[in-house]
Amino acid sequence: MPKNDFTAALLNAIEDELRLAVRQTAGQGLGQFNHMLAYHMGWEGEGAGPEARGKRIRPLLVLLTCAACRGEWERALPAGAAVELLHNFSLIHDDIQDNSPTRRGRPTVWRKWGIAQAINAGDAMLTLAHLTLLHLEKTVSPQVALQAARSLQQACLLLTEGQYLDLAYEAHGNLSLDSYWHMVSGKTAALLSACTELGALTAGTSEAIRAACRQFGYSLGLAFQAQDDVLGIWGNAALTGKSAESDLVTGKKSLPIVYGIQQKGSFADRWAQGPIIPEEVPQLAVQLEVEGGREFATKAAGEMTRQALESLDQANPQGEAGQALTILAHELLGRQA
Amino acid sequence: MPKNDFTAALLNAIEDELRLAVRQTAGQGLGQFNHMLAYHMGWEGEGAGPEARGKRIRPLLVLLTCAACRGEWERALPAGAAVELLHNFSLIHDDIQDNSPTRRGRPTVWRKWGIAQAINAGDAMLTLAHLTLLHLEKTVSPQVALQAARSLQQACLLLTEGQYLDLAYEAHGNLSLDSYWHMVSGKTAALLSACTELGALTAGTSEAIRAACRQFGYSLGLAFQAQDDVLGIWGNAALTGKSAESDLVTGKKSLPIVYGIQQKGSFADRWAQGPIIPEEVPQLAVQLEVEGGREFATKAAGEMTRQALESLDQANPQGEAGQALTILAHELLGRQA
Repeated sequence: MPKNDFTAALLNAIEDELRLAVRQTAGQGLGQFNHMLAYHMGWEGEGAGPEARGKRIRPLLVLLTCAACRGEWERALPAGAAVELLHNFSLIHDDIQDNSPTRRGRPTVWRKWGIAQAINAGDAMLTLAHLTLLHLEKTVSPQVALQAARSLQQACLLLTEGQYLDLAYEAHGNLSLDSYWHMVSGKTAALLSACTELGALTAGTSEAIRAACRQFGYSLGLAFQAQDDVLGIWGNAALTGKSAESDLVTGKKSLPIVYGIQQKGSFADRWAQGPIIPEEVPQLAVQLEVEGGREFATKAAGEMTRQALESLDQANPQGEAGQALTILAHELLGRQA
Repeated sequence: MPKNDFTAALLNAIEDELRLAVRQTAGQGLGQFNHMLAYHMGWEGEGAGPEARGKRIRPLLVLLTCAACRGEWERALPAGAAVELLHNFSLIHDDIQDNSPTRRGRPTVWRKWGIAQAINAGDAMLTLAHLTLLHLEKTVSPQVALQAARSLQQACLLLTEGQYLDLAYEAHGNLSLDSYWHMVSGKTAALLSACTELGALTAGTSEAIRAACRQFGYSLGLAFQAQDDVLGIWGNAALTGKSAESDLVTGKKSLPIVYGIQQKGSFADRWAQGPIIPEEVPQLAVQLEVEGGREFATKAAGEMTRQALESLDQANPQGEAGQALTILAHELLGRQA
């Protein structure tokens, strides 16, 4: 991510706003409840620290978009914290749904406190997201605050639709590329699109600029997911040492895999025979690359990034924040983790 | 529930608003996703029909409170639908958390579609609740709509706190009465209190009347739960034929049971020895009654109902809706299921 004094100040302000939001749950008799949420956010418990927190890309997108549209980014803070809380709600529930034992190198919430409490912790995180967004009341007009609330909730509904498709597709042997993009639109692009829209909304831009910002976030979301899918097979973590976490083993319907299945070659044959074991990962990753899966997904990520930058350009971003958005888009594409 | 032409018209309007809300999820490729929600709401699938829908008490409370405060109940419809959707979100997740195979005589969502999809269906239902509430934009001022959104989300946060306590208490052998009421404040009273507050808000009452309405809903919620707990052991369903569903068997920390444990008599001795089997239910229910558990909980429900009616009186409810609220409070206390 773009690292300089400006983005560092934004990230600090975001972290403060997030802590303030989660602190609401620290009532009488609720110490452990609050701890579950603080643990998931990477602030408490074993392995707490920056590594456990993720990159806070989503709130950064909100604040940078606001500032790039000549808004005061401080006004967008409630929206920034809200999107990050919403993202983390989805991670807590995803980990249960995918039966994932670890996240960012630490035991997941359901592994530590059981499925029942983890479902509830996710519900609480989602509620904190929406409550935090309403603090926009203090920084923008009631009309804009309502529009922002609707925008975030609409993204959340798309998220659950994408998640439905993702879970439903697990049972399918063959997934079309259209279905893949439909799912990713909901699972990833809807929230990133809400991030940039919320930034524009709080800056008070015209509808045209807001639409360009929304489109920037949407294309960036698609690019982000395609690149994530490449890293899920050919990233360092997936290839070396952690083969068990490779998308080839977890059976995720990722873009290279969907493409590979459609080629009906050796990769597709092996895929059809059932679960892949970690020992097969290096060889099968090579096979999928030979059959074009890596190039296809990488090109798609590049094309989506190009579209994202085109939309960003239409939004006519200003100053340091505008530059940071361009850098962020390039870095998301070039990242290795 | 009070059954006459007036409440029948309200209930019809509520059902229409609910169907409209859930229909939003019927997009391309999402037929089954939409069906899960419609199934849970009692509209589709095996056993669909009025019996499968519950009594829609919460939205009725919203609309009746609005009308009793001289508001147009039609304006409160988005809030009415929202509280019912929120209630149903909590039921879908509760059923997973409690491992309940049936609800209202039908298989639960997780039993039909698995835990992963059921978690997601609950998330979608919660999101629909908040989205539907925002339709208040069309019927009240932006300020009031925002206040209503905050009120519902705050209730939702209290709900997750109450749910945390409920799940955490399962591990405890001994629960104080204070802890019981703390849990019930969140699990049941917070949402009923939001119902009556939303009714007053949409009617545009003074803050004093709104506070009285909120208190009415809160006390009614406590009374409702205490009475529910009595029925969970001595109701017809719990005693005859469905002993397996008795709170004595499921191990719920209900008011008579919490009281019985504190008496340290024969009931407490048996409880301490581990799970109760259905065959023991009739005899153990008698034992708990002998030791005062039934009378204690019944009196508590009566006292809370009295407090509820006192608060309702302070709100100075008007006309047919005001009468219906009084009847509803009495009927909740006197109900047999």
